[in-house]
Amino acid sequence: MIKAKIVGAGGYGGVGLAELLTGHPDVEITALVAKENTGQPISAMYPHLEGFLDRVVAAPGTADADAPCDVVFMATPDRVGMTLAQAELDRGARIIDYSGDFRFNTPDAYADYAGRIGLDSTHLAGDLLPESVYGLTELHREEIASAHIVGNPGCFAVSCILGLAPAVKHQLVQPDSLICDSKTGVSGAGKKPGPAFHYPARYENMNAYRLTGHQHVCEIEREAGLLAGADLKVTFTAQVAPMTRGILTCIYGTLTNPISEQDIFDLYSEFYRDETFVRIYGGDAGIGTVHARGTNRCLLVVSVDERTNRLRIVSHIDNLLKGQAGSAVQNMNVMFGLPETAGLDRPGMYP
Amino acid sequence: MIKAKIVGAGGYGGVGLAELLTGHPDVEITALVAKENTGQPISAMYPHLEGFLDRVVAAPGTADADAPCDVVFMATPDRVGMTLAQAELDRGARIIDYSGDFRFNTPDAYADYAGRIGLDSTHLAGDLLPESVYGLTELHREEIASAHIVGNPGCFAVSCILGLAPAVKHQLVQPDSLICDSKTGVSGAGKKPGPAFHYPARYENMNAYRLTGHQHVCEIEREAGLLAGADLKVTFTAQVAPMTRGILTCIYGTLTNPISEQDIFDLYSEFYRDETFVRIYGGDAGIGTVHARGTNRCLLVVSVDERTNRLRIVSHIDNLLKGQAGSAVQNMNVMFGLPETAGLDRPGMYP
Amino acid sequence: MIKAKIVGAGGYGGVGLAELLTGHPDVEITALVAKENTGQPISAMYPHLEGFLDRVVAAPGTADADAPCDVVFMATPDRVGMTLAQAELDRGARIIDYSGDFRFNTPDAYADYAGRIGLDSTHLAGDLLPESVYGLTELHREEIASAHIVGNPGCFAVSCILGLAPAVKHQLVQPDSLICDSKTGVSGAGKKPGPAFHYPARYENMNAYRLTGHQHVCEIEREAGLLAGADLKVTFTAQVAPMTRGILTCIYGTLTNPISEQDIFDLYSEFYRDETFVRIYGGDAGIGTVHARGTNRCLLVVSVDERTNRLRIVSHIDNLLKGQAGSAVQNMNVMFGLPETAGLDRPGMYP
Amino acid sequence: MIKAKIVGAGGYGGVGLAELLTGHPDVEITALVAKENTGQPISAMYPHLEGFLDRVVAAPGTADADAPCDVVFMATPDRVGMTLAQAELDRGARIIDYSGDFRFNTPDAYADYAGRIGLDSTHLAGDLLPESVYGLTELHREEIASAHIVGNPGCFAVSCILGLAPAVKHQLVQPDSLICDSKTGVSGAGKKPGPAFHYPARYENMNAYRLTGHQHVCEIEREAGLLAGADLKVTFTAQVAPMTRGILTCIYGTLTNPISEQDIFDLYSEFYRDETFVRIYGGDAGIGTVHARGTNRCLLVVSVDERTNRLRIVSHIDNLLKGQAGSAVQNMNVMFGLPETAGLDRPGMYP
Repeated sequence: MIKAKIVGAGGYGGVGLAELLTGHPDVEITALVAKENTGQPISAMYPHLEGFLDRVVAAPGTADADAPCDVVFMATPDRVGMTLAQAELDRGARIIDYSGDFRFNTPDAYADYAGRIGLDSTHLAGDLLPESVYGLTELHREEIASAHIVGNPGCFAVSCILGLAPAVKHQLVQPDSLICDSKTGVSGAGKKPGPAFHYPARYENMNAYRLTGHQHVCEIEREAGLLAGADLKVTFTAQVAPMTRGILTCIYGTLTNPISEQDIFDLYSEFYRDETFVRIYGGDAGIGTVHARGTNRCLLVVSVDERTNRLRIVSHIDNLLKGQAGSAVQNMNVMFGLPETAGLDRPGMYP
Repeated sequence: MIKAKIVGAGGYGGVGLAELLTGHPDVEITALVAKENTGQPISAMYPHLEGFLDRVVAAPGTADADAPCDVVFMATPDRVGMTLAQAELDRGARIIDYSGDFRFNTPDAYADYAGRIGLDSTHLAGDLLPESVYGLTELHREEIASAHIVGNPGCFAVSCILGLAPAVKHQLVQPDSLICDSKTGVSGAGKKPGPAFHYPARYENMNAYRLTGHQHVCEIEREAGLLAGADLKVTFTAQVAPMTRGILTCIYGTLTNPISEQDIFDLYSEFYRDETFVRIYGGDAGIGTVHARGTNRCLLVVSVDERTNRLRIVSHIDNLLKGQAGSAVQNMNVMFGLPETAGLDRPGMYP
Repeated sequence: MIKAKIVGAGGYGGVGLAELLTGHPDVEITALVAKENTGQPISAMYPHLEGFLDRVVAAPGTADADAPCDVVFMATPDRVGMTLAQAELDRGARIIDYSGDFRFNTPDAYADYAGRIGLDSTHLAGDLLPESVYGLTELHREEIASAHIVGNPGCFAVSCILGLAPAVKHQLVQPDSLICDSKTGVSGAGKKPGPAFHYPARYENMNAYRLTGHQHVCEIEREAGLLAGADLKVTFTAQVAPMTRGILTCIYGTLTNPISEQDIFDLYSEFYRDETFVRIYGGDAGIGTVHARGTNRCLLVVSVDERTNRLRIVSHIDNLLKGQAGSAVQNMNVMFGLPETAGLDRPGMYP
Repeated sequence: MIKAKIVGAGGYGGVGLAELLTGHPDVEITALVAKENTGQPISAMYPHLEGFLDRVVAAPGTADADAPCDVVFMATPDRVGMTLAQAELDRGARIIDYSGDFRFNTPDAYADYAGRIGLDSTHLAGDLLPESVYGLTELHREEIASAHIVGNPGCFAVSCILGLAPAVKHQLVQPDSLICDSKTGVSGAGKKPGPAFHYPARYENMNAYRLTGHQHVCEIEREAGLLAGADLKVTFTAQVAPMTRGILTCIYGTLTNPISEQDIFDLYSEFYRDETFVRIYGGDAGIGTVHARGTNRCLLVVSVDERTNRLRIVSHIDNLLKGQAGSAVQNMNVMFGLPETAGLDRPGMYP
């Protein structure tokens, strides 16, 4: 059994891992670390885990929190993982970090990211960056397999990059024409209450935010650029819809050459032929975010607007699973040579 | 592997079973029967099942629909199971029926039930009624183990009866003082669209309905009466809240003798000591329906209103699981000598 | 024009008043007082008021905040109004207070209320209590007309008392049998974010709270007792449903004598014959909270459970209107001799 | 008083008009026509109208339905208004039609529209088309003032055209670069229940639909082309979000020349300087659809993505008001020389 530690166990990202790992055949959770509710079972905070995971929450820095293990999930905000990584590596653990701390390979790339959200732009473990791997499994599986530090991708980024990848790889779209219009459920903002996520303020409300620049665009452009073999820029708009889980992204790009919807469908299907968690649909399949809810899947609906010569991909994920905890478990499976679907092979819940 | 057939596979009760049984280690789904989408895989109707269950839906009366199996789940409306039961028994199957068809042991008791919802009151398989067993596992486990026909309980009834049982069994409450005030999520009304369940008509709306008499009260009074050893009547009020899953029932009864909240807590805990799926909480535990969502659990919060000498039990279930498909799988496990938690041993999804 | 001041303008209770008073033909808002966003127009906080009310928010204690006016609405939490009341009276204003500060006529009655929610039980303006009037217009219209201080009723209390009044007045129900099972929308908890009102924690969740005793029960028992001419106790259960506005209360009482539903209907209709804002319906009217939303109405659905000899009244209000700002305006209209419907005579918004 | 008739009074578009017109100082509703609930007061269908509008619903073709009036609102589906228009004109009425029947001036333009949604493409009152006027008040106020037939605009179209107008008028954006990504609340689909609008299927679900071509694109391109003085094509994507009211549209266009956000703000502000119902905001204003809810306003948030040289306008309306009934009343006001805000001058309801 792989011994797993969850740092940041109290947040939505942590509890999502707890749900997945308690059902994982090859993993044993050996430590839960959080700043709140320390000394109490995690089920005191999350009663639905009672009987499945009753482990006591350890405070950071305690012996329990620092016990050696095989894999550490840093389900923590930006700039936490970078302060803990070296010690965990020294104890023999491999690391999967949720934040932007290890999504970039150079201090400069990190600084660009950090600056967009007003963070200190100095990386505190810059020497670890070159060996960190971007954790979008479908695109970096081999590097992830041998990585000691994986930077789990941003939730919006997952929905965008998987939708863009075949098109930019095959030069189907003009590189200066890309737009990603993304709508997320409220859980994307995490567990901490705030005025914008207060139930009465959020129901019946949809809004765009951070219009001057969302930090996930860095990953999107980097990954799309790698696939295209050229620098790319993307217009990205983040929006919140009154639902808890789910991201729907509409991806637009002007076609370099006319191509039929069927050809796009075939090309996307071929690109993701061996991927369990990416599924391709035609425009009339009736797919919505609810069909990805509770799963690690990304559902891509492909279409062409022939009148305007434009490709339109509609990408659907569960932001807390393929956009977070699910990708993390998928990455762990790859890192430890397990079947990629281990712990992730169950249908969602409908309705 | 136990061969299972789901009749009525297209409804919420059927899809819930499909989700549970695809993850059940000892069960193989060998037939899906429905009137709609016949000849297509079930995943055409429910895309989230794709890759987990792609079996083609058989029309009633076809060879596929009538193939022998070990257990038939009749996830069908009232008065369907009674027309199919004998043939399935003859083919060697055991039956778990969702409707009111097999919840009562006599034609008269059935007629009382049927009359409340305007159904024909003549049972079409009255000879099977004496051997049918009421499928509330916690109260009828032994009879269920050997039953050939189980009448799965009504969703409201589950929440009420489990909350009432210890109190009436121990004569804690005056038999003429019982009130069950129940609120259900919208999925309780099933998959069929209608004006009362149209999204714009249902959001921001809460209402009571069927005030002149809800059919589930028959089961509640019968079971409570059996436990009390006396006839009982209960005032029952059904309400719909703007959520999809969940039932919250407040149960009130005047105490026969003063008793402390701690004593009630202990007595309920003792009553359900060996039950995996029933959990007892004190009044300040912060429990809501969301903590039962996605699970087969019934969460009971016990309290006493000392000022008015009244017992108050707040009962929480997922109406589609402990109130329907979960109870059905639990019953199947008992009938086939499997661990009672098989296929039901995973935490819900939060948030 | 009546000059009105709103203290606590930033909360839901304040903005609700702002919406109503900007449409009131006889009222001019002359001051908005709040602790936040001072010096900015109220529309900076509430963009939907832009163009209707752009008055700048004054900080407490400033000259603008203390300017004389005809009526002060204290849309403030407990224990604020009591510190401001005398000064406003001295400046010639009449006062309508939202909190529990002026709902009781004696320091002892206040202490009983305050103790239930952990407040300091000493009233700081106890000398004003004897002249304060309880602001449930339908029951205290004449005293309100001449009152200088009105204690606006609690939202739950409005729904309960209006539903109970005819029954207790006419001794239809046994005084020790009364139960009020109330469910509120989330806005009842106000504008301040918190873990229990965070969108992802609240959607798909229904729960009971404060089971050991809700403070509104004091008002309910006092008013019901006055009508009955005897002391009464009521079991009250507060619950939250995943909606923003609305309270649905089920009221139960054992009938002293058998009575038909039609007779109850007639009796309730007669009791409220001259009341614009209370409407009586039979059990099959299809009424829900949405039909009270956006209005100052209380909708009462009457029914009798003949099997158990029990009266059941289902009461529906908009918690922010008849349960708060609407009642406040109704009281102001009565105090200033205006038509009672002034500013309140428009239909709600559907859907 | 202007005598107004509402045909199609039972739908959301009809009830929205009823709510507005009962509060309109210069209008009297003299007939309500619908196919359902005829012979009963409209308040039997819509209890919240009780006391405000209790007029009996007339069946089509009856004397009551055909009584002469000053203005007829055809709150009817496509291809109904065209069969009734001439008779109403003959009786002296002016007409405001909700559907696509009178949004186009030629049979060919109508046929293009009709074909996209599978309607019969032959207009049944083609001779009336040349004199019909497109009812987007802000762009066609003068023609509307003297029109006898106004084709009220589509809800999506309102949000798109008002957002596009200043940019295309001033050639700010490249004509082949326009994308409108629109998300609507569920009420946009009307009152008729269906599988896609069933509460359990719709909560927690967001999806794109009619990807092969939405009919509103015809109006958008026609109006944008008129402003630009050239043919334009627009990629339009319709999506549904789990809310009842509201449309949020993100509009994208590649800038012809670099321009600052402040200059865009000033230019939009100038364009709509005299418009009461259009309001311009910068990117950090915190505007969402909730701020347009219950009003006839269109809220435009302007921003520039300098990195990609792209204009991005976020447009917010209430789909049932500025997108339907509100625009209809605004048009009526213009047609009858009333203040444009009559009946529309109240703030929305928050939260």
